[in-house]
Amino acid sequence: MPETVLALLTAPEARPNAPLGEPPFRFVDPDAPAVQVDDLGITRGDGVFETISIGYGRAQAFEAHLARLAHSAALLELPEPDLDAWRQAVLAVVARLGHLDQAYAKLVYTRGREGHGQPTGWVLGDVADDFTEARTSGIRVVTLDRGYRHDVPATSPWLLQGAKSLSYAVNRAVGREAARRGADDVIFVSSDGYLLEGPTSSLVLRFGDRLVTPATGQGILAGTSQADLFAYARREDIVSAYEVLPVAKLAQADALWLVSSVRHAAPIREVDGEPRDVDVALTAAFNEYLSTRRD
Amino acid sequence: MPETVLALLTAPEARPNAPLGEPPFRFVDPDAPAVQVDDLGITRGDGVFETISIGYGRAQAFEAHLARLAHSAALLELPEPDLDAWRQAVLAVVARLGHLDQAYAKLVYTRGREGHGQPTGWVLGDVADDFTEARTSGIRVVTLDRGYRHDVPATSPWLLQGAKSLSYAVNRAVGREAARRGADDVIFVSSDGYLLEGPTSSLVLRFGDRLVTPATGQGILAGTSQADLFAYARREDIVSAYEVLPVAKLAQADALWLVSSVRHAAPIREVDGEPRDVDVALTAAFNEYLSTRRD
Repeated sequence: MPETVLALLTAPEARPNAPLGEPPFRFVDPDAPAVQVDDLGITRGDGVFETISIGYGRAQAFEAHLARLAHSAALLELPEPDLDAWRQAVLAVVARLGHLDQAYAKLVYTRGREGHGQPTGWVLGDVADDFTEARTSGIRVVTLDRGYRHDVPATSPWLLQGAKSLSYAVNRAVGREAARRGADDVIFVSSDGYLLEGPTSSLVLRFGDRLVTPATGQGILAGTSQADLFAYARREDIVSAYEVLPVAKLAQADALWLVSSVRHAAPIREVDGEPRDVDVALTAAFNEYLSTRRD
Repeated sequence: MPETVLALLTAPEARPNAPLGEPPFRFVDPDAPAVQVDDLGITRGDGVFETISIGYGRAQAFEAHLARLAHSAALLELPEPDLDAWRQAVLAVVARLGHLDQAYAKLVYTRGREGHGQPTGWVLGDVADDFTEARTSGIRVVTLDRGYRHDVPATSPWLLQGAKSLSYAVNRAVGREAARRGADDVIFVSSDGYLLEGPTSSLVLRFGDRLVTPATGQGILAGTSQADLFAYARREDIVSAYEVLPVAKLAQADALWLVSSVRHAAPIREVDGEPRDVDVALTAAFNEYLSTRRD
């Protein structure tokens, strides 16, 4: 069975003429070029994406990811995605990758070719890297300025903060800056001093017996894995909360994680060069829960 | 002769084995897919670009554009582009479009496919839109917050301000916001109140007999057309200067332009709903100069 599969969404306008029951996507060679050079996804980073983890043949947090894709698309004023078509394409990709224990599906939805007025979409399925070490030994992070105040989504919505857009060059650049500083990952801090998120993850902090994550509305993504962790917390009678957190709260936390779809819960063992305690038991429980989600 | 041509740069590693004299690019069908779905240019907007105007068979401000491509690539820590290869590709595209009075060449340079360690590059040549009305009747602009302080390039270089990157979703979003406000274009303002640039243009202001543009170093691009305008000014004994300009200076200017490679000098006839005087004579002189540049 293949380890990489690519399903291209069929343009909605092409579908009314399609034979009844024909799927709204088609599988193509993932190594062959599939995007035109005038696609606004590549010339302007003008599109959105989602990365869904596949665990034991199931797309995890599936509906939350689809909802966030639609939310990001709305922030970018893209045509409303046909979530039923996306759902079918992801399920078909998952079916083809079903033999893989840990895989992922990346959904990309762009504004399409300039002047054509027709979005482009695809689902790429692939085997996931092995994140065992990050999940157990933990990661070193640095705090880096994101440059924006925490209230820009309210004052300046055109900055698209809170959308998972394809314009992620900064999210890549901070990874290189972290590596230069001897770290593995980043916690973004707003220009006015609030904790935000990682470049591809949510920040979760434990204060005593409470779990806290920075409140959305500060230009950060609603974390799908973080939301599932909070569901786990409710099941275990652990109090959880969304809060606006000044940077100083970082030093007061008893444990910290960056949480994301494919890597799951990576405990933070160092912040800006200072060692931090890893909560081994809770980390293991988090990752057991996230890895075995069935939807 | 064609109106759209596409030259794909050949990967440098493929060239040592190429027959002597073989060009470092090849022409392909511009309508056929040319980019793989795992190219970081599309999945992360991780790349840079330039748009060069072609006037009467000449690539205008050619070396300035190539130098800026290399500068942007350095800011993104991309492999240093082989400017000689790019030069050859652009000249070949220009030769094919030589029959067009007003055309452009778009250069795109990405980090390439994830995990392949080999950048992707191409030059797309196409006919330009007719910008006569914008150049003569002028444009309406709104000022919009860019969200960053003017000093972020010094404090937070990982924000990539000053690089012409493919992560331009915000530059597109502000265009939609401008349209909602009944305007054609945007002047970005820093979060601490300084005039910056347009989303795809430089701002030039006239105060009496002086021309002024916001100083680079504030996270704005070094404008190729603006630099040529300043060369024109020197020839005409008009004083020109790069300055850090608080927003209040906008109201004091006697005339304003957004200047860019393909549209050239667009006089501003309205700012945030307030009418402004257009300097008809100087605008015409600017556009005559920019349109007839031979290099």
